[in-house]
Amino acid sequence: MSKLKLTITMSIDGYVAGPDQSPEQPLGAGGENLHDWLVPLKAFRESHGHEGGEVNASTPFAEGILAGAGATIMGRNMFGGGPGPWEESWRGWWGDDPPYHHPVFVLTHHPRGPVEMDGGTTFYFVTDGIESALDQARAAAGDKDVSLGGGASVAQQYLAAGLLDELVVSVVPRLLGGGARLFENLGDARLEQVESVEAPGVTHIRYVRA
Amino acid sequence: MSKLKLTITMSIDGYVAGPDQSPEQPLGAGGENLHDWLVPLKAFRESHGHEGGEVNASTPFAEGILAGAGATIMGRNMFGGGPGPWEESWRGWWGDDPPYHHPVFVLTHHPRGPVEMDGGTTFYFVTDGIESALDQARAAAGDKDVSLGGGASVAQQYLAAGLLDELVVSVVPRLLGGGARLFENLGDARLEQVESVEAPGVTHIRYVRA
Repeated sequence: MSKLKLTITMSIDGYVAGPDQSPEQPLGAGGENLHDWLVPLKAFRESHGHEGGEVNASTPFAEGILAGAGATIMGRNMFGGGPGPWEESWRGWWGDDPPYHHPVFVLTHHPRGPVEMDGGTTFYFVTDGIESALDQARAAAGDKDVSLGGGASVAQQYLAAGLLDELVVSVVPRLLGGGARLFENLGDARLEQVESVEAPGVTHIRYVRA
Repeated sequence: MSKLKLTITMSIDGYVAGPDQSPEQPLGAGGENLHDWLVPLKAFRESHGHEGGEVNASTPFAEGILAGAGATIMGRNMFGGGPGPWEESWRGWWGDDPPYHHPVFVLTHHPRGPVEMDGGTTFYFVTDGIESALDQARAAAGDKDVSLGGGASVAQQYLAAGLLDELVVSVVPRLLGGGARLFENLGDARLEQVESVEAPGVTHIRYVRA
């Protein structure tokens, strides 16, 4: 069965987004700096339609986020468009050709029909919970893995429910001082470290469910 | 000038001690498991007068904590003996021959004369603040470095004041769910990652002041 994997960047003080998240500032104050390790990489630039960029020890982790999966699950806030019933003109942050290129399952309390984008990305809106979203994503992914896109709340729910098979925490030397924490409300979740990799400005630590 | 260095073990959810710290449980609930990477090591066992033990990628970090320094600074809670004026019969947690073997400066609001132990450890009690303790520790350390022993509150004060030169965070795959956090109340402190090392059950990340 395909695995559910999350790769997420965290400041050393534990935040995956800074304070004061808003549509203009989806990662909160200071949050845009969390991904300074990722944005210059060739693997990231190519997935967003740009040429050039760096190759370093972070490259396999950048590729793992986007290229390794056959489906993605994300929370409502990560898809955007504000709370409440859908404004159908909102089709995500990523333009006409989002960098997923596979089915994306958006967890929401508000029903909406599928939204088909260019390049193989279709957004499906799931209103009956995290297990249903995982079942649908696994069916769509075939023999590939399912990527958990975030944000923090959705990641916590899958982690606490024991449904997350693998977690890569990319720890960056930032102190955000506030915002959204990844590791809270986790019940009896247990992790085992399987790998850690030093890269410029970041340490990637891979965990599996213990 | 000798550098002020801190090596501290942190759960991946950000705690350096669990909840409900007490004299019987100085690292709080679950906190004793934080150091599972350290206790089996030959370097740790030898510093506590025992033979045998493991050698692995954590060994240089264990040696760095104890052997590299010419003086140590610690907070009142780490020395123990409860709050308030000193009960002179309390001479620390470590028996007659503590593992420091050099001068140790204990930050406290309550004056007390020096306490000389076996094996070269003398405890000095400093009531005039963190900068005074650092000055005294540097003078005592000569051309060696000064080790910051902890706990969290003292570490935060030195970090926020920009006085900590080097910080090794040993990140372990534990979720304590509560307790004492290292990274809070830090003001504008900034860190730069200089090294990270994978070892069994722990990832050591070395930072300097940015």
